[in-house]
Amino acid sequence: MVMVGAGAIGSFYGAILKRAGCHVSVVLRSEYDVVREKGFSIDSPLGDLSYQPDAVYRDGETLEQAPDYVICCVKVLPGVDRGALLKPWVGEHTRIVLIENGIDIERAVADVFPANPLISCLAFIAVSRTEPGRIEHKAFGQLTMGTWPDGISDDCRAIAALFEAGGINIKLSESVVAERWRKSLWNTPFNPLSVLAGGADTVTMLDTEGGEALVREMMAEVVAVAAADGHPMPEDAIDKNIAGTRKMPAYRNSMALDYLNGRPMEIDAILGNVVAIAQQHGVAVPRLETMRAALAMRDVQAAKDN
Amino acid sequence: MVMVGAGAIGSFYGAILKRAGCHVSVVLRSEYDVVREKGFSIDSPLGDLSYQPDAVYRDGETLEQAPDYVICCVKVLPGVDRGALLKPWVGEHTRIVLIENGIDIERAVADVFPANPLISCLAFIAVSRTEPGRIEHKAFGQLTMGTWPDGISDDCRAIAALFEAGGINIKLSESVVAERWRKSLWNTPFNPLSVLAGGADTVTMLDTEGGEALVREMMAEVVAVAAADGHPMPEDAIDKNIAGTRKMPAYRNSMALDYLNGRPMEIDAILGNVVAIAQQHGVAVPRLETMRAALAMRDVQAAKDN
Repeated sequence: MVMVGAGAIGSFYGAILKRAGCHVSVVLRSEYDVVREKGFSIDSPLGDLSYQPDAVYRDGETLEQAPDYVICCVKVLPGVDRGALLKPWVGEHTRIVLIENGIDIERAVADVFPANPLISCLAFIAVSRTEPGRIEHKAFGQLTMGTWPDGISDDCRAIAALFEAGGINIKLSESVVAERWRKSLWNTPFNPLSVLAGGADTVTMLDTEGGEALVREMMAEVVAVAAADGHPMPEDAIDKNIAGTRKMPAYRNSMALDYLNGRPMEIDAILGNVVAIAQQHGVAVPRLETMRAALAMRDVQAAKDN
Repeated sequence: MVMVGAGAIGSFYGAILKRAGCHVSVVLRSEYDVVREKGFSIDSPLGDLSYQPDAVYRDGETLEQAPDYVICCVKVLPGVDRGALLKPWVGEHTRIVLIENGIDIERAVADVFPANPLISCLAFIAVSRTEPGRIEHKAFGQLTMGTWPDGISDDCRAIAALFEAGGINIKLSESVVAERWRKSLWNTPFNPLSVLAGGADTVTMLDTEGGEALVREMMAEVVAVAAADGHPMPEDAIDKNIAGTRKMPAYRNSMALDYLNGRPMEIDAILGNVVAIAQQHGVAVPRLETMRAALAMRDVQAAKDN
């Protein structure tokens, strides 16, 4: 199989598939030389997951034979055409597996490869890239997955079995879109809010005067959009999310870390697509719209200032 | 008269009163030595407004005779007790004049000096402090003023005549609170939004996708709160504000400049008090609440990180 995008997430799940005995190639850009020479070094509670990929490619190369699976682990960003990135590696029978964050992030890929099976995965993991080719896996690793837009195909079960053989937990879901909404209930309020609050951590967000009330209202907006999109959530979903967050120590989410480190942020995948779906269904999301517009303005101003 | 707070605003209006022939003293903190030695240097389209105050005081000094007027030009910030700052200079018959931004910023002063006449002024001016004791007046200067909470007392007319004698335009208003709401219609959306958008200018805010729509919705929230507070605005107020802003070149408002320069921001005066009044009247202001909470979280996180 071919991993497209080998940041922290791609490198980690590549290691898992390698442990399962798969032939794992990676397509890289900036880290091509380092990884080709030294492979990936991965520290993990699962043990030393370091590995040398079976092949290291870069853009522009072609394969004689298309792989059974292409696994896409690139960030979902406005300037990144994932269809074009995947194109060279996807053959007629290649299954495409997305391990990516966000809502409605499958469509752009499905539009380019309408005949290929598309398997959508959500990663629940704490992993970071500390330097080129070097990954630190701190905790978790479960994938929730299903065939897009719904169901669990045999292809999906097959790749799930490989991940499990590599040592991680898999949750198969008949509705991966519903799973994405469930994750969005947390991410869509907390991630952008943290950025607007200058990189605030979870405890700051909940404990600031008016903070928890605002997060709850934002969550209610997400629940309303999800319901309009055909994915109603249980009544206690918000209470459970807040309670779960309060049980964890203060931490900065991935978007906050991207923001503080000057990296591009998945604004559309996490927030913009939710607002767009709300608008399609006529659901009022004033708080989410406020965040989306403020973050969009930030990008426009940064482009002007540079 | 005694000017308390001689930043850009206080120094400028002190110069105007000096030109009108008034005895003008100033109370300073950090710039005491510079101003005592060299006075204020003020470049202005009105001419060279540089002046040496008749006296320069600092906290802790006392006067033998209380002044007729104390003019308060300090920023309205959570940690700043303006009542305490004014106390040493206010006698039984002293009129208190506020030249300050924001909504409901008079109450904290009136509570400390319930028997003193209180005159509330809004400055429409472009002025900045370039270094200690040195002020650049770029344009405008009009004051809109009235007795607080309403009416135009003889005291108010008297100080207005002095400002006019010094060369600026005065608009007397029977309802200075209504005037504050009218200014709030612009400031309350644009100022905090600019900060959340990383210091975005007016054109960025209006031209970003969804930007003008958001600003209009926020203005509608302000209009609703003002109406609930007894100050309905004309139906075309929002259209006029947007059109007026579109006629101006792109610029960064005062809060954006404070943010970009790491100076404290008048969040409560401009935004927090509007949200508080909305809550008292049960008016929904989801967009303003989102901004207020995000900015409050920013302060909490900054305090944690330092």
